Amino acid sequence: MIDRKAFRALSSGLCLITAREGGRDCGCVVNTLVQVASAPPTLAVSLNKDNATTAAVRESGRFAATVLAQDAPMELIGTFGFHSSADTDKFAACSRAIDGAEVPYVADHALARFSVTVTETIDVGSHYLFVGTVEEAEMLAEGDALTYAYYHAVKGGKTPPKAATYNGGDEAPLAGVTETAASAPDAGKRIAWRCTICGYIEEGYPDGLPADYMCPICGAGRDFFERVEL
Amino acid sequence: MIDRKAFRALSSGLCLITAREGGRDCGCVVNTLVQVASAPPTLAVSLNKDNATTAAVRESGRFAATVLAQDAPMELIGTFGFHSSADTDKFAACSRAIDGAEVPYVADHALARFSVTVTETIDVGSHYLFVGTVEEAEMLAEGDALTYAYYHAVKGGKTPPKAATYNGGDEAPLAGVTETAASAPDAGKRIAWRCTICGYIEEGYPDGLPADYMCPICGAGRDFFERVEL
Repeated sequence: MIDRKAFRALSSGLCLITAREGGRDCGCVVNTLVQVASAPPTLAVSLNKDNATTAAVRESGRFAATVLAQDAPMELIGTFGFHSSADTDKFAACSRAIDGAEVPYVADHALARFSVTVTETIDVGSHYLFVGTVEEAEMLAEGDALTYAYYHAVKGGKTPPKAATYNGGDEAPLAGVTETAASAPDAGKRIAWRCTICGYIEEGYPDGLPADYMCPICGAGRDFFERVEL
Repeated sequence: MIDRKAFRALSSGLCLITAREGGRDCGCVVNTLVQVASAPPTLAVSLNKDNATTAAVRESGRFAATVLAQDAPMELIGTFGFHSSADTDKFAACSRAIDGAEVPYVADHALARFSVTVTETIDVGSHYLFVGTVEEAEMLAEGDALTYAYYHAVKGGKTPPKAATYNGGDEAPLAGVTETAASAPDAGKRIAWRCTICGYIEEGYPDGLPADYMCPICGAGRDFFERVEL
């Protein structure tokens, strides 16, 4: 007897995992980074087998990790979490830093970063669990971490089907969307709709997106969009 | 270059891991339980090699896990987190439930529970990382999970040296202790001092515990005690 809702009680935070292999820089968003030993300092992270980042970590034997701050914009999470590094340069819209092992990471909106050498790779079905020794650990900023609970409850974020913690798509709908949509626009501003998953902006549709609308970038439905003014 | 403070940016929640081996029931507190795959539903948890619970998980190949609610009392956390199952019946002061695999768990102050069969055991130095398939997952209560950040910041909790996430003992001191100690007791009540780590009550000392005071149960110093009235 498995109640998928039980897994949502587990607390976690959002992190970016980045890697470099064959001249290509990859990255993805996870909520599965955990410290599993203090001596030596060891991290574990689970990555979906279908991710381009996963292939880069397997081939290079290394990854970098950053802990996202609560103020990390949804566009950053959308770029790294809902696109594929195979067809997107995820670093194009943010600053690319390089750690001591020549692995790229994103210092923007990050509280801390780690540089990790993989020591074990465990096949766990839909994902690989990578275990590795931390060779660099650095604080980048003070502040609150972006917990998965905050991401869902306050930012209205969603879980992609490839996540280790995808347990069905029936999270609570976005709060406040209807209310926002009902207010009048400021004079001289254009109404548009922003995908809260990937950050895509759809202009027009002052009366709301059509019921069958789908985001051309990530495929999210109308309920994932919030009204903005440009 | 390793800055241990960087690890504290990682978000996690407190869980109880319990096991039964050779007629003895064991349990400990962790903040390392993570879902690492969705298909099949898979959990990983890191346990210190010196824990009695770790030996029971290794020998039995099973564990139960509960996600603690934010209102879980410090006594429960102290009993399971700062004592050894080798010399304490940790279940004596709480209700003992039994899952479908005959593994005990504590349903009190828990949001969810899991019953897990271990499929991989990885040696990560100070700890073993256990990976296992979830055979039962059940919601037990609605509410907020006890995050590690909340445990430290609001409950004034501490990290035991055997934890995977022990990165030095220089967490912020308990907020409000001095202020509480300065207030006058209610008439007819006795002043006492409660260890915020293990729950031990030390009576007397109306002017505060001596500077060299140590908890006779868990060894915590004076700064870990809060004033209570009996």
